[in-house]
Amino acid sequence: MTQMAKAREGIITEEMKIAAQYEGIDPEIIRKGVAEGTIVVPANINHKGLKPRAIGKGMKTKINTNFGMSRGKEDQEYELEKLQLSLDMNSDTVMDLSIGGDIKGLLKRVIEKSPVAVGTVPAYQMIAEKGIFFTAEDFFEAIIDQAKLGVDYMTLHCGVNQSSLKLLDDSKRIMNCVSRGGGVMLNWMKKNGTENPLFEYYDRLLDIAAEYDVTLSLGDGFRPGSIHDATDKHQIHELRILGELTLRAWEKNVQVMVEGPGHVPLDQIATNVKLQKTLCHGAPFYVLGPLVTDIGAGYDHITAAIGGAVAAWHGVDMLCYVTPAEHLRLPALIDVREGIAATKIAAHAGDLAKGVTSYSEKDNVMSRARKDYDWEKQRELAFDKIKFDKYQKDGEQGDKKQCSMCGEYCPMRES
Amino acid sequence: MTQMAKAREGIITEEMKIAAQYEGIDPEIIRKGVAEGTIVVPANINHKGLKPRAIGKGMKTKINTNFGMSRGKEDQEYELEKLQLSLDMNSDTVMDLSIGGDIKGLLKRVIEKSPVAVGTVPAYQMIAEKGIFFTAEDFFEAIIDQAKLGVDYMTLHCGVNQSSLKLLDDSKRIMNCVSRGGGVMLNWMKKNGTENPLFEYYDRLLDIAAEYDVTLSLGDGFRPGSIHDATDKHQIHELRILGELTLRAWEKNVQVMVEGPGHVPLDQIATNVKLQKTLCHGAPFYVLGPLVTDIGAGYDHITAAIGGAVAAWHGVDMLCYVTPAEHLRLPALIDVREGIAATKIAAHAGDLAKGVTSYSEKDNVMSRARKDYDWEKQRELAFDKIKFDKYQKDGEQGDKKQCSMCGEYCPMRES
Repeated sequence: MTQMAKAREGIITEEMKIAAQYEGIDPEIIRKGVAEGTIVVPANINHKGLKPRAIGKGMKTKINTNFGMSRGKEDQEYELEKLQLSLDMNSDTVMDLSIGGDIKGLLKRVIEKSPVAVGTVPAYQMIAEKGIFFTAEDFFEAIIDQAKLGVDYMTLHCGVNQSSLKLLDDSKRIMNCVSRGGGVMLNWMKKNGTENPLFEYYDRLLDIAAEYDVTLSLGDGFRPGSIHDATDKHQIHELRILGELTLRAWEKNVQVMVEGPGHVPLDQIATNVKLQKTLCHGAPFYVLGPLVTDIGAGYDHITAAIGGAVAAWHGVDMLCYVTPAEHLRLPALIDVREGIAATKIAAHAGDLAKGVTSYSEKDNVMSRARKDYDWEKQRELAFDKIKFDKYQKDGEQGDKKQCSMCGEYCPMRES
Repeated sequence: MTQMAKAREGIITEEMKIAAQYEGIDPEIIRKGVAEGTIVVPANINHKGLKPRAIGKGMKTKINTNFGMSRGKEDQEYELEKLQLSLDMNSDTVMDLSIGGDIKGLLKRVIEKSPVAVGTVPAYQMIAEKGIFFTAEDFFEAIIDQAKLGVDYMTLHCGVNQSSLKLLDDSKRIMNCVSRGGGVMLNWMKKNGTENPLFEYYDRLLDIAAEYDVTLSLGDGFRPGSIHDATDKHQIHELRILGELTLRAWEKNVQVMVEGPGHVPLDQIATNVKLQKTLCHGAPFYVLGPLVTDIGAGYDHITAAIGGAVAAWHGVDMLCYVTPAEHLRLPALIDVREGIAATKIAAHAGDLAKGVTSYSEKDNVMSRARKDYDWEKQRELAFDKIKFDKYQKDGEQGDKKQCSMCGEYCPMRES
């Protein structure tokens, strides 16, 4: 039985209790949300040692960190360092997006080591193994394999179907598709001339998901990759399909999140959240960014933090981190660190604004520590203690009741 | 005659023409805005070689970069490197906030080298020279000295007066004052038991400003330094005073900007902008941040970029940059670079949302360059070309129609 099935029978599971404890709320709130579908607690029955967190309505905004090997960069230890860094910095979920190397080998180790939910994009295993020359059967086998390993949620581009492919015929987009997994399905459909198996055999997918309690993260193959393309017919067409697939999943007690953009200008973010919440019936919304401009290369953790904060404020439930390496290279460890910090800040700023986190929880404590020149307490509250240490040490001078910014003229000393 | 005096006589000045050309608009729009006070064109009559920019309603959101020596860090060349970096990265104004070393010596060099408007906080020269043991006469002399040198705008905390000091008696703030210049005036008033000379002799200040066409940047001594303190009575009390001082300046044809917060949660930013625009009669609004959480130490360029983007969207006219060093140390060159990039992104994202910058100007060009794998064009559009080069080179692989992020599986290749 899935978390959703149990929730609907009125059962508060151990996983819900753990998630509620992390959240600091009554587990019944989580049970109710999981039963309705507005909250997910991704928790594969085979993920030993998992301490799951709740993603959805009324919960603190969560963040996800991606890592993974690519062809030619197949060092498992380096990716496990990224996992450890993600855990150290309190990432709420991690995704292993390996597209090269021993994919199942690394995934097994990640699941063993990760107390937070682990996600994947099974299409990556497919193209790594077979390019686009895979069969529907191959794909379902990969999904079952990963489900058996204990993957808690899977991004599956079920909404990239023949109708959305046809819609591209008169596309006005700058970039038709910037989703790696969505692109795989598009190219597969073009090559085979048949329907996307994830859409055509969606019930089979649901049966697998129900068996292992894999949460579906319905991928957005048509997320806009430039602000020019934001909130257009391709994106909304897919979102409507994902809304229908959400209802079908809920009928089988399968937990669902819906993925979202992408590149979206600031003034369209609230609309995007509202659209997802209505078209997808309140299912949790998990966004990549959104990036509020296309021209931030080298700083896309910041273009994404701006969009992510506003998105979280308006009701987005999980932010996928974006690093300074976005659009340029595979993220290095330093990029992972900067990306996590930026995304944690965005989630927290959104939570302060939407009222799920009180100022008194951390912000007031930080400000009082600042007023008291209590550097140790400030360090405790910093998202990135390594960076804090470096800067704070550089700035030390005099009697510690100052830093090199204002020196003895620190305005807090006498006012 | 000031720009404002000329504008009110219907004269389109050379400075307005230069500003209009940069903006890509009819100079008459700028003349009208300067006449009304909704736009400033800071342009001291003694600043040779100035190519001023317009700050205010309907203009692109501007950004300011700060630098300056502090006691013990008195290397003029290092600060001039920061100036050069600011110019290279297209900062719209710069402020020399030196509080140590040969303040007038550096300021003279900065004004000579800077084609963009130069701002100062004259209170810093005061405390550097005399601590708080200065007289009203000393202060006005410093202002006149700097005006003669060609300073285009000055932050002056005229609204920190006895009434706002008295209001602190029952303060519920975590931090009464986090403004260095505001703190100087507070401490001066406490020590002398008399009114702030900038408030008491405001007409004298206006006469000096009118003579040299120094734009007043009315400082916010009570800007909130923690989100707990945001939008409170101290802040609004001062803002009302600044609104009255704005009208008095306009009577004497003195250009005015009003400075603003500070630390403000996301959901209070639009309110803050609206309040300033109504209480200060549409005068340009120049904000420091706002930082949307207090706990971003090491990443406050990001907490500020989030707030700055939303503020710009809602009508803020200039963003003061914030660097990763905020709250921890005097910014190093790398901090200046990251701070400028973050702030440029915030301003641009706000401009896309408020419609003063079209997507087609840069974003669509970037996205098409991305789709075409035109790395040279992408580089041209990047805010920080040094960082772009480093990341792009690291990410190069194969046939250049890919980067190490997705490699040969780049979704743009086939869709």
